[in-house]
Amino acid sequence: MERFIPLSIPNFEGNEKKYVDDALEQGWVSTGGTYITKLEQGLADFLKTDNVAACQSGTSALHLSMIRAGVQPGDVVLVPPLTFIAAVNPVKYQFAVPVFIDCDDSLCMDPEKLRKFCEEECEYNGIMLSYKNHPVKAVVVVHVFGNMADMEGIMPIAEQYHLKVIEDATEALGTYYTKGKYAGKYAGTIGHYGAFSFNGNKIITTGGGGAVTAKDTRDVDYIRYLSTQAKDDPHYYIHHEIGYNYRMTNLQAALGVAQMEELPEFIRRKRKNYELYQKYFNGFSLVQLMTFREGTESNRWFYSLKIDKKKIKASMREIITILQGRGIQTRAVWGLINEQKPYQNEMVYEMEKAPYYSQRILNIPSSTQITESEITYVAETIKKLLKDLANE
Amino acid sequence: MERFIPLSIPNFEGNEKKYVDDALEQGWVSTGGTYITKLEQGLADFLKTDNVAACQSGTSALHLSMIRAGVQPGDVVLVPPLTFIAAVNPVKYQFAVPVFIDCDDSLCMDPEKLRKFCEEECEYNGIMLSYKNHPVKAVVVVHVFGNMADMEGIMPIAEQYHLKVIEDATEALGTYYTKGKYAGKYAGTIGHYGAFSFNGNKIITTGGGGAVTAKDTRDVDYIRYLSTQAKDDPHYYIHHEIGYNYRMTNLQAALGVAQMEELPEFIRRKRKNYELYQKYFNGFSLVQLMTFREGTESNRWFYSLKIDKKKIKASMREIITILQGRGIQTRAVWGLINEQKPYQNEMVYEMEKAPYYSQRILNIPSSTQITESEITYVAETIKKLLKDLANE
Repeated sequence: MERFIPLSIPNFEGNEKKYVDDALEQGWVSTGGTYITKLEQGLADFLKTDNVAACQSGTSALHLSMIRAGVQPGDVVLVPPLTFIAAVNPVKYQFAVPVFIDCDDSLCMDPEKLRKFCEEECEYNGIMLSYKNHPVKAVVVVHVFGNMADMEGIMPIAEQYHLKVIEDATEALGTYYTKGKYAGKYAGTIGHYGAFSFNGNKIITTGGGGAVTAKDTRDVDYIRYLSTQAKDDPHYYIHHEIGYNYRMTNLQAALGVAQMEELPEFIRRKRKNYELYQKYFNGFSLVQLMTFREGTESNRWFYSLKIDKKKIKASMREIITILQGRGIQTRAVWGLINEQKPYQNEMVYEMEKAPYYSQRILNIPSSTQITESEITYVAETIKKLLKDLANE
Repeated sequence: MERFIPLSIPNFEGNEKKYVDDALEQGWVSTGGTYITKLEQGLADFLKTDNVAACQSGTSALHLSMIRAGVQPGDVVLVPPLTFIAAVNPVKYQFAVPVFIDCDDSLCMDPEKLRKFCEEECEYNGIMLSYKNHPVKAVVVVHVFGNMADMEGIMPIAEQYHLKVIEDATEALGTYYTKGKYAGKYAGTIGHYGAFSFNGNKIITTGGGGAVTAKDTRDVDYIRYLSTQAKDDPHYYIHHEIGYNYRMTNLQAALGVAQMEELPEFIRRKRKNYELYQKYFNGFSLVQLMTFREGTESNRWFYSLKIDKKKIKASMREIITILQGRGIQTRAVWGLINEQKPYQNEMVYEMEKAPYYSQRILNIPSSTQITESEITYVAETIKKLLKDLANE
């Protein structure tokens, strides 16, 4: 068989089958069951937070956070342009208005531009920030590829203007600050809400799935209530709110409990593999292996190469196609959200770095099963290809 | 151990474990994989329809149908008062306006009241029906407890006024017309859209899960596209629409494929058990076992007793509590949706039968595993209790 090295696939080396079979045998496969609460407790312990609600997906985690943050039709939510579109779509689910704020060199939201936008483009009456007469309610901060956003820069601005911070930690389960004000704090536990994803390509998976935590434990309880159809009396069908069918199932959670047992080992491997890639790409002038924020320890979920577009004239699509032919699955970074059809008429603020990086980032294989020899093959193949493509 | 007869629990007597383990071993647990397409094909074959999209839940199936039907903020959607609230919540997700139309004696929407509402309360310009200047876009018809709504009565009205009919067949997988204009047609395949649910208590389950079919196969394709984050180019992250994370996972679908193999047997047992209950309750004056529409064959998902409130003064809550104490799980019908807090200010049209039935219906154990002797125990216990409670 031909060699094929996938970008990022699930790893079921642990108790996945055992727990899933157990849930099946118990007959608890739907939105009730002990694996759900076990997973919630496991996540809370791992993240050093009080309360976690397991839900159907990262998207639903973000949507419920936004609802709880009070985002209503016509409100403004500040969002990133360079991430997966699911981080921004919940703004549209609420018929609210996104405003795109540029990233810094970490690919995460630039606090300076956030501050400038609030100061120079908005009005603030001491209680509520407004943009063109629309209340600015929240900011969605994505920890892109497992890198920590500059929370030290972002939080004071959010506090100053009474913005709710929704951390999209869908890619950053296990990333934490090692130094400074937030030392010991995990991505997703610094803002008002933190959303996680356990989609198939994430560091742990429940098939599809997600979770929410929040600074205020009552917010988590409320989100859990909303996620289970807002049942105030489950036996007599009394509902005081519009609920959602966003609860994680016990079958998914069984998978998640097994995955949580392996998470520390997954992170250890991700780190080791990153260091190996580093060894290969250090000093190679045509690409730069993207680093993670100083003073933080990333989960190193995804590895990204920044390609030198001055020297490499081939398009990203050509590079990806050639590598695919050589058995290596790679991925371009996302198209800018503000350039997608449903967002083309939305407000974009001082966009500069996001378009720059969106042309240059190539993600390379990062599954936890990848072997040393595969990493060697990936790195050497990419280096050789880029040398061949370099116009010197 | 004490005897306990549950209301409605999943039945995994078939290939559930085998297929779920297979999906796990393949590593395909997320929104890609062959079990999803296999389940879609199996459902399409069973329902004698061209195209089915598997999704995350019945709620998401209804929500996507409503989006595709063009329901926008401020539009009116005609909905039932006596059903699970998830049938109506998607109207609110779209910030649209529900108007509640009463049921007939089948507990499903009354076509005569639907007609009267359209004729007498709305304006019609030959293209668009309007209610108080809001366009009336769609009608949600729920096939309550597996009983077929009066589609022969409803469809001509919908056609006359250009309303999209969204059939909520979440409880009615397998119910079909045996006679008349729709002979051979299944619940969910008569209107413009049909939504199904595979929640834990349904006739088949995928843990959580659902599906959509539609009269126009392109609508199903479009809904499938919306359910998978609206990816126009999945490799380069191009999105022409606001997408949703509503796709069924392969792990859920593996369960579903096994359950579909058993569905005919489940329906056979439901029918047999219904007949047994019928034998016990026939001629017993304090309750009436609800029947199913003539000219249709119901999946007989749920069995409902109508309690004679003139003779039985005990509250439904008291009856349920006493039966619980005797090892029998029963359930009251839903609280009227128009009386729930988020809907209290909405328009209600000629409500009469829904409040009547909401006080009188008791659902009794209907799992496919229930034994003959359990049915005997349930029926005899209920009869004895009601005799004791009867004030004669």
